[in-house]
Amino acid sequence: MENLQNDLLLKAARGEKTERPPIWLMRQAGRILPEYRELRGKLSGFKELVETPDLAAEVTMQPVDILGVDAAIIFSDILVIPEAMGLRYEMVEKKGPWFPETIKSKSDVDRMIVAEASGVQYTLDAISETKKRLNGSIPLIGFAGAPWTIFSYMIEGQGSKTFSNARKMLYTEPELSHKLLEKIALSTINYLKGQIAAGANIVQIFDSWAGILHPTQYEEFAVRYIKMICDAIQDVPKIVFAKGAYFALESLSELDCHVIGADWNMDLSDVRSQVGDKTIQGNFDPCALYCSEENIVKEADLMLAKFENGKNIANLGHGLYPDTDWKKVKYFIDHVKSFRY
Amino acid sequence: MENLQNDLLLKAARGEKTERPPIWLMRQAGRILPEYRELRGKLSGFKELVETPDLAAEVTMQPVDILGVDAAIIFSDILVIPEAMGLRYEMVEKKGPWFPETIKSKSDVDRMIVAEASGVQYTLDAISETKKRLNGSIPLIGFAGAPWTIFSYMIEGQGSKTFSNARKMLYTEPELSHKLLEKIALSTINYLKGQIAAGANIVQIFDSWAGILHPTQYEEFAVRYIKMICDAIQDVPKIVFAKGAYFALESLSELDCHVIGADWNMDLSDVRSQVGDKTIQGNFDPCALYCSEENIVKEADLMLAKFENGKNIANLGHGLYPDTDWKKVKYFIDHVKSFRY
Repeated sequence: MENLQNDLLLKAARGEKTERPPIWLMRQAGRILPEYRELRGKLSGFKELVETPDLAAEVTMQPVDILGVDAAIIFSDILVIPEAMGLRYEMVEKKGPWFPETIKSKSDVDRMIVAEASGVQYTLDAISETKKRLNGSIPLIGFAGAPWTIFSYMIEGQGSKTFSNARKMLYTEPELSHKLLEKIALSTINYLKGQIAAGANIVQIFDSWAGILHPTQYEEFAVRYIKMICDAIQDVPKIVFAKGAYFALESLSELDCHVIGADWNMDLSDVRSQVGDKTIQGNFDPCALYCSEENIVKEADLMLAKFENGKNIANLGHGLYPDTDWKKVKYFIDHVKSFRY
Repeated sequence: MENLQNDLLLKAARGEKTERPPIWLMRQAGRILPEYRELRGKLSGFKELVETPDLAAEVTMQPVDILGVDAAIIFSDILVIPEAMGLRYEMVEKKGPWFPETIKSKSDVDRMIVAEASGVQYTLDAISETKKRLNGSIPLIGFAGAPWTIFSYMIEGQGSKTFSNARKMLYTEPELSHKLLEKIALSTINYLKGQIAAGANIVQIFDSWAGILHPTQYEEFAVRYIKMICDAIQDVPKIVFAKGAYFALESLSELDCHVIGADWNMDLSDVRSQVGDKTIQGNFDPCALYCSEENIVKEADLMLAKFENGKNIANLGHGLYPDTDWKKVKYFIDHVKSFRY
C-alpha cells in the first residue's frame, strides 16, 4: 500500500480514528475556479479536457493547490463508459450531455460491447499523470457511474425530469434491461480495476438517478449491479453515493463497501441509524455556500456536531454549483479543517 | 353540503368506510386523451385553454366521460397565482413554464400584491361551468400550488434541476423569503376560498418541489405556509401532496388536513407508519401504465393489497405521462373500480 503524507480520507473510509475528518468536495475541479474557466475557454469543448491526460491532470490538481482538499478526484465524466461500450456522447454547452443515438431495441443492446479499461485509456493516463503530480501527498479518487444511472442516459439520451423512457424499459423489457445493465456493470468493473492499477487509491460509484426508482425496482435493477461492482473491486475502499435513494440506505449498507454518501437533504442522524457502522460521506448543502462566512460556519458546525471519529467524511450532499464563490468554498474547507474530534 | 350521486372521494378523504376505494388520476385531463389534443390543436396555446371557462370545463369533463373517474379536477395551472400577484408567466411548448421577469430584490417582492380570488376569475367561472356539467354526479377537486413551489418558480423563472437560486434566497434573505411566502400563502387562501365558493368540493395543495429542501428548511419555509392555508380553509376536505418530502411526512400528518399524497417511490406501509390515521392518496407509478394489461393488474394489486377501508384513495404517485395509452389508463381505472374491500 502506498505511503501517503495525508491519508485521512483512506483512514476515515476504513473506520479508523483520525485527528479531524477529511474533506473533499464533489465537483471541486471545475467551473468554480477561475483557473479552470481560463483553461476551458481555450479548448474546443468539455470532451477535449476529459480526453487529454495532461489537461485532465491539470484541472484535477487545481483544487488540491487552491482549496487544500484532503483528496483529489480524477477529472472525467461518468459517460465515458457508454462511449467505450459503443454509444458516443456529446456535451452540449449549458444543456449537458446528449447522445445522438440511444438504446431502443434488443439489437441496440446486442451491439454494445463490454468495454475494457483501455477503452478509456485517456482517463487511465490522466490518473498516472496526476499521481506523478500529487507525488504522494494525498489520495486520488477514481470513479464511475452506477449501472442504473448509465443505463438511464443510454436510453433517454440526455437528462430527464421523469426518466420515463428508461423506467418504461424496466417495466416492459426486464430481461433486456438486465442484459444491458450487466454489460454496463462488467465494463465498469474493468474500468475501475484499470483506474486502481493506474493509481487510484479509492473509488466512488455515483448513482445520480437513484431517487427516481421505487424501492423494489431499485433493489432489482440498481443495487444488484452496484453489488456486482463492489464484490469485484477488492483492493481499495469503495464509496457508494446513491442520490435520493433514502429508501435504500439499509440495503446499501449491506454492500461490500466502506462509505455511503448522504444527500444534503438527509438528516445525518437518520442516515446513521440505517447504515450501521459504515462511514458516511457528506452532506453539506452546496447552496449554503452562497451564505455569508458567518452563516457558512453556523451551517458547517451543525454538520460537524453530528460527526463521529472514524465514521464521517466531510463533503457536500451534491456537487458544487458552478457560480459559487471559490473563496467561500475555501473558507468552508478551512473551517472544517480547523475542527478537532 | 351538496348531495352527490358518487361521493366516494369525500367519504374516503374523511376516513369513512366505502365499498371500494375512490380513484382519480393526477393529470387525468390532458394530453393522454385524443379529445384533449384535438381541442388543444385548435387553440393559440395552453393559456387560452386555462383562461377560457367553457374550454377549461370541457377538458375537465373529458376524463369524467371517457375514463370514468370518481372525481373531476378543475383544469388550470398552479402558476395562475403568481400571475394574479403580478408576475406574468408563459407556457413554452415542450419546455414548460417560463417567467419573462423574476423576483430578485426587495422591491420586486414589495411590488407583488396579495391576490384576490377574482384575480383568477376565469378559473372560478370554469368551476361554476363544470359544476353545471357534472350535475351532481361526482365531486370537483379544486387546487393550488404550495407556497414554496410557487416561490421557486417566481425566483427561478422556470423549472430547474437544483433550484439553487430559490434555495439561495432562503439562505441569504430569509426575512424577504418569508415576506414573499406569506403573500403567496394569503393569495392562495383567497383563491381556494373562491374555488370552494364556486363549487369545489375538496382541494389539493401541490408542493411539487418539496423534495429539494432539507428537513429544517422545509419545516421553516414550506410546512409553515401549508399550515397557514390548511388552518384558513375549513369547509371542505384538504389533500396535501408534497412530492419527494419523505422526510416531512410526520410533520405533514400534524396539519389540519385530511389526506396526504404519496409519491410512487414511497412504500405505502412506510407512509402509513408516519401519517397516523390520515387518508393516503396514491401511489401507482405512472410509468407502470406502459406495461401490458396483465402487468398493470399485477402492479395495481400490489398497491390495493396495502389499502385499508376509509384510509386510501387510489391515484398515481405523480402525474400521468403524456404519451400513455389512454386505453391502458382506462383499463387500470376499471380494474381498481372492480376491487372490493
